[in-house]
Amino acid sequence: MKQYIEKNRERFLEELFSLLRIPSVSSESAHKDDMYRCAQRLVELLKEAGADKAEVCRTTGHPVVYGEKIIDPKRPTVLVYGHYDVMPVDPLNLWKSDPFEPEIRDGAIYARGANDDKGQTFMHIKAFEFLVRTGQLRHNVKFLFEGEEEMGSNALSKWIKTHKKLLACDIILVSDTTMLNEKIPSINCGMRGITYMEVTVKGPNKDLHSGHYGGGVYNPINTLCQMIASLIDEDGHITIKGFYDDVVELSRKDRKMLGRAPYDAKEYMDNIGVKALKGEKGYTTLERVGIRPCLDVNGIWGGYIGEGSKTVIPSEAHAKISMRLVPNQDSKTIAKLFTKHFKAIAPKGVTVEVEEKHGGDGFLIPISSKAYKAASKAVGEVYGIEPVPSRGGGSIAILAEMQRALHADPLLMGFGLERDFIHSPNESYLLDQLFKGMESIAKFYQYF
Amino acid sequence: MKQYIEKNRERFLEELFSLLRIPSVSSESAHKDDMYRCAQRLVELLKEAGADKAEVCRTTGHPVVYGEKIIDPKRPTVLVYGHYDVMPVDPLNLWKSDPFEPEIRDGAIYARGANDDKGQTFMHIKAFEFLVRTGQLRHNVKFLFEGEEEMGSNALSKWIKTHKKLLACDIILVSDTTMLNEKIPSINCGMRGITYMEVTVKGPNKDLHSGHYGGGVYNPINTLCQMIASLIDEDGHITIKGFYDDVVELSRKDRKMLGRAPYDAKEYMDNIGVKALKGEKGYTTLERVGIRPCLDVNGIWGGYIGEGSKTVIPSEAHAKISMRLVPNQDSKTIAKLFTKHFKAIAPKGVTVEVEEKHGGDGFLIPISSKAYKAASKAVGEVYGIEPVPSRGGGSIAILAEMQRALHADPLLMGFGLERDFIHSPNESYLLDQLFKGMESIAKFYQYF
Repeated sequence: MKQYIEKNRERFLEELFSLLRIPSVSSESAHKDDMYRCAQRLVELLKEAGADKAEVCRTTGHPVVYGEKIIDPKRPTVLVYGHYDVMPVDPLNLWKSDPFEPEIRDGAIYARGANDDKGQTFMHIKAFEFLVRTGQLRHNVKFLFEGEEEMGSNALSKWIKTHKKLLACDIILVSDTTMLNEKIPSINCGMRGITYMEVTVKGPNKDLHSGHYGGGVYNPINTLCQMIASLIDEDGHITIKGFYDDVVELSRKDRKMLGRAPYDAKEYMDNIGVKALKGEKGYTTLERVGIRPCLDVNGIWGGYIGEGSKTVIPSEAHAKISMRLVPNQDSKTIAKLFTKHFKAIAPKGVTVEVEEKHGGDGFLIPISSKAYKAASKAVGEVYGIEPVPSRGGGSIAILAEMQRALHADPLLMGFGLERDFIHSPNESYLLDQLFKGMESIAKFYQYF
Repeated sequence: MKQYIEKNRERFLEELFSLLRIPSVSSESAHKDDMYRCAQRLVELLKEAGADKAEVCRTTGHPVVYGEKIIDPKRPTVLVYGHYDVMPVDPLNLWKSDPFEPEIRDGAIYARGANDDKGQTFMHIKAFEFLVRTGQLRHNVKFLFEGEEEMGSNALSKWIKTHKKLLACDIILVSDTTMLNEKIPSINCGMRGITYMEVTVKGPNKDLHSGHYGGGVYNPINTLCQMIASLIDEDGHITIKGFYDDVVELSRKDRKMLGRAPYDAKEYMDNIGVKALKGEKGYTTLERVGIRPCLDVNGIWGGYIGEGSKTVIPSEAHAKISMRLVPNQDSKTIAKLFTKHFKAIAPKGVTVEVEEKHGGDGFLIPISSKAYKAASKAVGEVYGIEPVPSRGGGSIAILAEMQRALHADPLLMGFGLERDFIHSPNESYLLDQLFKGMESIAKFYQYF
């Protein structure tokens, strides 16, 4: 595959760039047509790569792309999952180049989606192309690319239920995660789930003059701040009643194994520019972001947020609050517990609305499985060092659902790096990781 | 004056509407030209009403309007203060009619500025016109209208220092406050000061993926919420060190006198649509909003606040926080105490920026003064009942400064009502109050 990459390098980049140029921001309705364009472009790429069949499939939301090459129904089947939707780009002013005009700087592609997940999805199409064109394909390969991963995969969740037979497979192969770093490769053996809520605190029935009412009424912003502050106690524990009921404590052995992952507190802090870290008492930073649940406010707004000043007690205040869950926690249960708790802590002078935006469960992948071993061998050969098993803190909500629906385990061969700043301005993807990823994937098919 | 109003009613309304149609939002730079247009229109109205001189005066910010009619330098001089700038109109979708196209519904004018302060300022121009045209003017009258009251009066504050002689007067007459209600008129005998701050909490040097970092770092929004929550304790006391040092407790007699103001908790709560009130322990609601200092968040923002959801730990979070002060508290001192305190409570994992947006001191007006007595008599005659002295919770920062610079007391003859919802969508001003205000002002000149 290495030689094949060298020979086709320019074409590969031009093809990937054609995907990156489409602003497929799933959560913004203005980009609805771009979603379709992007799906259509993926169909073209799949066909050019050698798929027998590839099509844009209608769903209740943004379309799904399905493609396949069935060489022999008796042979094992790999289902490649990826997503073509990307996160919003704001704040736009912090981008050094146009998020939708990819640019190569210092050996990395800079663009929204360069890594997450257009870049990583693209590696699979090219590894497949290599196997097809060189006559080495020994598996049936199915491709499933969705357009709503960044907003909760609602449409795909429904679509899967009516397409179980079409999607039947032996393993769900995914590249949508990170490695520890480019020198110490790792393979994810578990991911966190998520419950994403939006809350509104309503006070007076209209905005009030803060001079006339200040000191006498519940200010929805102050109240929201107090309610949010109370959700996490001084030891970093979440105070929602029942929140930890289904959390399974890892064995000392498992914690030790995951503890092999290299971690340098100073480097970690320098990388994100902070002077101190915080989190749940009794756990290391890597445990806090990997094997423990957490709660974060992802957005907050209320009152006057424009230029200058306005002396107002606003009628409402809002926040988007998400919780990362560990594998045994149930996203729907947590949404219910959160809603009940948040309403219970609201003082009498306000009313509270709580809405579940999306959610998904976490999952684990057995290290002893054939697929994990094949991935480990493939990545080990390309990087010259055995990969470390790690636990991802992020969530791919849909994978736990697919695991249940298709009775197949997901395998997470991610090639992203922390330095890629997915979801942030100046998202990037190292060319070296892009090409090593393709190579590792091609080798995976060899060993699986 | 009553007859004069009846005869000129339509013209009066058309003139006032011409002011209301100009979107003079001082805090939004897009309206810079509108500010000048509005000042120019006031000059025309002053001249038409009988001023010998009226002009738009350049300042370091939005222009000031100055006008005068000096009948005899030996006679007492009344300086009328008002402001022609208005608050921003957002949220625009809650307005039932265009905020800058005045509409009369149920006996009230609906428009931004209908009351605050174009409507109330206009009453003075018309009372003056009546006195001039009917040959009853016995005082020198000066007019000073500024364009930055809603954003802190910075420009006027400087302008006053170089125009003390021009503005020399015996009383500063102002209509920019409310009455208790239309049946129980009141005259303000004191107002609160204000200190308006903007704070920024900075965490990581870029937005982070909440899956990768969630649980391990200081989230600037959660941190800001915690810091804000800690500013007020369970008893409603502000926790800033030294905050109450200069607060003078009112005597039992003064509290009793102010307690004569009618107050019905149910009506108060129904009016703003809330089921409970809160505030400082040991004080009534009217005391909390009148004679006690307070702290309110006027705006908050951070992270993803758009449609849908984004799993981000933002790099920054922001809030606008203002404190209402009582007369003996010094706005500058409070700004310093706030800054010191807010920085002191910031945890190590974030940095904090604190900026003072504007401020002004509170003040008191002696009830025994000749001006207060004249106003009380005038208002009493028009409303048929002696007005109650009251303490205003709002702030007109510049009045304390003018009091010191010009050695003249401000007299607050306000005719607004709580139902006018100044600073909110659907600001209005009752026609009855507009005309009774004109009448009261004309009578004030008679008794002063």
